Amino acid sequence: MDLLEKKFLLAPGPVPVPPKALLSMAKPVVHHRLPEFSALLRQIRDDLKYLFQTREEVIFFASSGTGAMEACVANLFNPGEKVIVVRGGKFGERWGELAETYGLNPVYIDVPWGEAVKVAEVKEALSSHPDAAGLLIQAHETSTGVKHPVAEIAPLTRQSRTLLVVDAISALGVYPLPFDELGIDAMVAGSQKSLALPPGLSFVALSPRAREKAQKVTSPRYYFDFRRELKALAKETTAFTPAVSLLYGLAEILARIKELGLPRLFRHYQRLSGACRAGVKALGLELFAKAPAEALTIVKVPEGVDGAKLMKLMREKYRVTMAGGQAKLKGKVVRIAHLGYQSELDVILALATLEMALTELGFKLPLGAGVAAAQKYFLENQEA
Amino acid sequence: MDLLEKKFLLAPGPVPVPPKALLSMAKPVVHHRLPEFSALLRQIRDDLKYLFQTREEVIFFASSGTGAMEACVANLFNPGEKVIVVRGGKFGERWGELAETYGLNPVYIDVPWGEAVKVAEVKEALSSHPDAAGLLIQAHETSTGVKHPVAEIAPLTRQSRTLLVVDAISALGVYPLPFDELGIDAMVAGSQKSLALPPGLSFVALSPRAREKAQKVTSPRYYFDFRRELKALAKETTAFTPAVSLLYGLAEILARIKELGLPRLFRHYQRLSGACRAGVKALGLELFAKAPAEALTIVKVPEGVDGAKLMKLMREKYRVTMAGGQAKLKGKVVRIAHLGYQSELDVILALATLEMALTELGFKLPLGAGVAAAQKYFLENQEA
Repeated sequence: MDLLEKKFLLAPGPVPVPPKALLSMAKPVVHHRLPEFSALLRQIRDDLKYLFQTREEVIFFASSGTGAMEACVANLFNPGEKVIVVRGGKFGERWGELAETYGLNPVYIDVPWGEAVKVAEVKEALSSHPDAAGLLIQAHETSTGVKHPVAEIAPLTRQSRTLLVVDAISALGVYPLPFDELGIDAMVAGSQKSLALPPGLSFVALSPRAREKAQKVTSPRYYFDFRRELKALAKETTAFTPAVSLLYGLAEILARIKELGLPRLFRHYQRLSGACRAGVKALGLELFAKAPAEALTIVKVPEGVDGAKLMKLMREKYRVTMAGGQAKLKGKVVRIAHLGYQSELDVILALATLEMALTELGFKLPLGAGVAAAQKYFLENQEA
Repeated sequence: MDLLEKKFLLAPGPVPVPPKALLSMAKPVVHHRLPEFSALLRQIRDDLKYLFQTREEVIFFASSGTGAMEACVANLFNPGEKVIVVRGGKFGERWGELAETYGLNPVYIDVPWGEAVKVAEVKEALSSHPDAAGLLIQAHETSTGVKHPVAEIAPLTRQSRTLLVVDAISALGVYPLPFDELGIDAMVAGSQKSLALPPGLSFVALSPRAREKAQKVTSPRYYFDFRRELKALAKETTAFTPAVSLLYGLAEILARIKELGLPRLFRHYQRLSGACRAGVKALGLELFAKAPAEALTIVKVPEGVDGAKLMKLMREKYRVTMAGGQAKLKGKVVRIAHLGYQSELDVILALATLEMALTELGFKLPLGAGVAAAQKYFLENQEA
C-alpha cells in the first residue's frame, strides 16, 4: 500500500498516464478479428496521420521503440548498403548497432555528447557519400537532451536517393516535425513519451519511396515486416495480434490530441521546458544540452555532489523518479522529463525536489530560487 | 480526456485516494452474506479498533459523516434531554441543528469562528448544567481549522452522566485522539479524510455507557440504529447492505495504517501542516485559525483580493482544488487540506499555486518565498 508513499514520475519514459486513459485500457479486451476492432483501427489510423502530419499510412507494432527502429533498418536497407549515421548519444549508437547487425555499411558522423549535429556536417557527408542509401538520425537524442536540426537536414536528402530515417521517439508530439512537409522517409515513435501511454506500442510513418524500397529489400524480417503490416492495414486489420488494451488508450489520447490541436501540445511542452530551464539557471546549475529539445531538461550534477546519491535521495526520500545519465553520462547529469501527463506543477515539484536533495547533500543553493524562476516564467508565458 | 488537464485535489474531503486502494475497490463485489465477507469484516473490525485506539466495537454505516453524527444524536439522547453544544463553526452548528431536529434541548457555548473553546467555558457549562445528558463537540472544526481541546475536556465529563460526543471526522488519524484513554463516549469519523478513501463510509466508536444509553433511548431510528448494528457485528455481519467496494479499500488502508503505526501517520500530518504554515507566514499572509489542527491550513484572503476569483483561478488555470470558506467565511479564506494521499510535494505545489494565483490577481508577494520556507521546514524537520 502506498498511503504515505506518493510517487512522482518525471523520467523520459515511462511517463505518467492520464487516469482516463488508464481506465480505457481496463475495458474488456475485444477480439482483434471482429468488426468492433476494425472500427477502433479506423479511428486510430486517421488520428495517427494527424499526429504525424502525414497523408501516408502509419504502421504500428506491439513493441518498444527499438523494435520500430529495427524495423526501419531491416525493411529499408539491403545488406552491404551504405548508411550515414549521426552518432551523438546512446540512441545514435543504437542506429549504428542496428545497421551493423543487419550487415549495412554505416558511415558515422560522430557528434560530441551534448551537441547537435551541424547541418554543414550532414551536407558534407551526403556529398561525400552520394551512394548512401539512408541517413539515420534522432530528432531528439534522449540520452543528451539534444535536438538535432532535422527540419534543416530533411531538404538535403530530397535531391538524392538517400532515405531520411528519423527516430522521433521522444520528439513526436513535443515540437513540430511535420512528416510530409519536411519530406521525411521514415519516422519512428513510441507510446510511452508524449503520447502519455504505458510502453508497448511503437509507430513508423513511411513515405511513398520508403514503401517502395521496402518491397525490394532482402533482409530477413517477419514480425517487423512493413509489407505485411501495410497489406493488413489496407484490409482494416493487423498482421499479428495487436496490443488491444494499449490501442484503447491510444484511441483516447489521439482523439484528445486532435481536439486540442498540435500547436497547443507543442506550446505546453515549450512552457514546461522553458520554466524548468529558467529554474535550473536561477539555481546556478548548468544545463547539459547545448541545443535542447522541449522534451527534457538535463542538469549537470554540480562539482562535489555524488550523482548516484542524488538520484537515490530523490527517488527514495521524495519518491520522485527522474532519470540519471546513461553510458558515459552516468552519475553526471539529472534528466527531468517534460513528457506525458504533466502540468506546470510537475516542473515546480521537480525543481523543489532537486533543491532540497542538493541542499541535503551539502551543496549550497538559494532554496526556492529555482521554483521562483519557474513561477515567473509561467506567469510571463501564458498558455494561450 | 485529461491529457493537459492534470488535476490536484487539496480539499478537506474528498481527498486523493492511493492507486492501490482504488484498484482494490475495483475488485468484483462479493456478496455480503458469504463467509468471504465475514473474513473481510473481521479484519476491518480489528483494525478499526487500532485506529480509534479502543477495545470497544466501532460501528460503520454506508453514509457520509453527517449520517454518523445524526446516529449519535438519535441513539444517545431522548427528546427533551439537555445537551451542551460547542458551536464555533459550521459543524458545531450542525450538532445544534441535529439536536433541535430530534427535540433535544441544546445549550450552546458559542465560540468566535477561528478560536478554540476554552476549557474553563466547558467546565463552567458542565457545572451550570449538571443535568446535561451530553456534550457535543468537534475535535477539529473543519470550517475554521480550529482544534478544540478535546483531550483536556474529556476528563471533565468522566465525573458526570454527561456523554462526550466528538465529531472527529477530519481529526481521526491526523493527531492523537485515543478513544479509551481519553474516555470519550462516542466518536465519529468518515472515510474521505485521513483514511484517504472516497466518501461513503462513516464510523462511530462507542463507550460501554454510550452503548447502554442507546438501549434506553426512544428517538425514532432504523437505518442508523446502533443496537441493530452492534447485534449484527456480533454475528459477523451488518444490519443492512454494506458499501462492499469501499470496505475493500478500507481494509487495505487500515492494514497499511497498522503497519506504519499511528505515530508515523501523526508525524506525517504534523510535517505537512507545519511546512505549509511556515510557507504561508513567509509570504506575509495570515493564518485564520488561532489553534489550528494538523489537517488543514486556513489562509486569510489578503485585503484587496477577491476570494472567489482566487479560488476560480487556482481551480481552472492550475487545476488545483483547495476549499474556500463556508458560510460567513465565504470568499474570506482559502483552506488547504493535508489529508489523504498527499506528500511533502503537495504542500510545495499548493504554496506555489497560491503564490502564482495571488501574483496574477495583483497582490504583491515574493514569488517562491512560501515554497522556500516549506522546503526549509522539511529539511529541518525530517520524517524519522
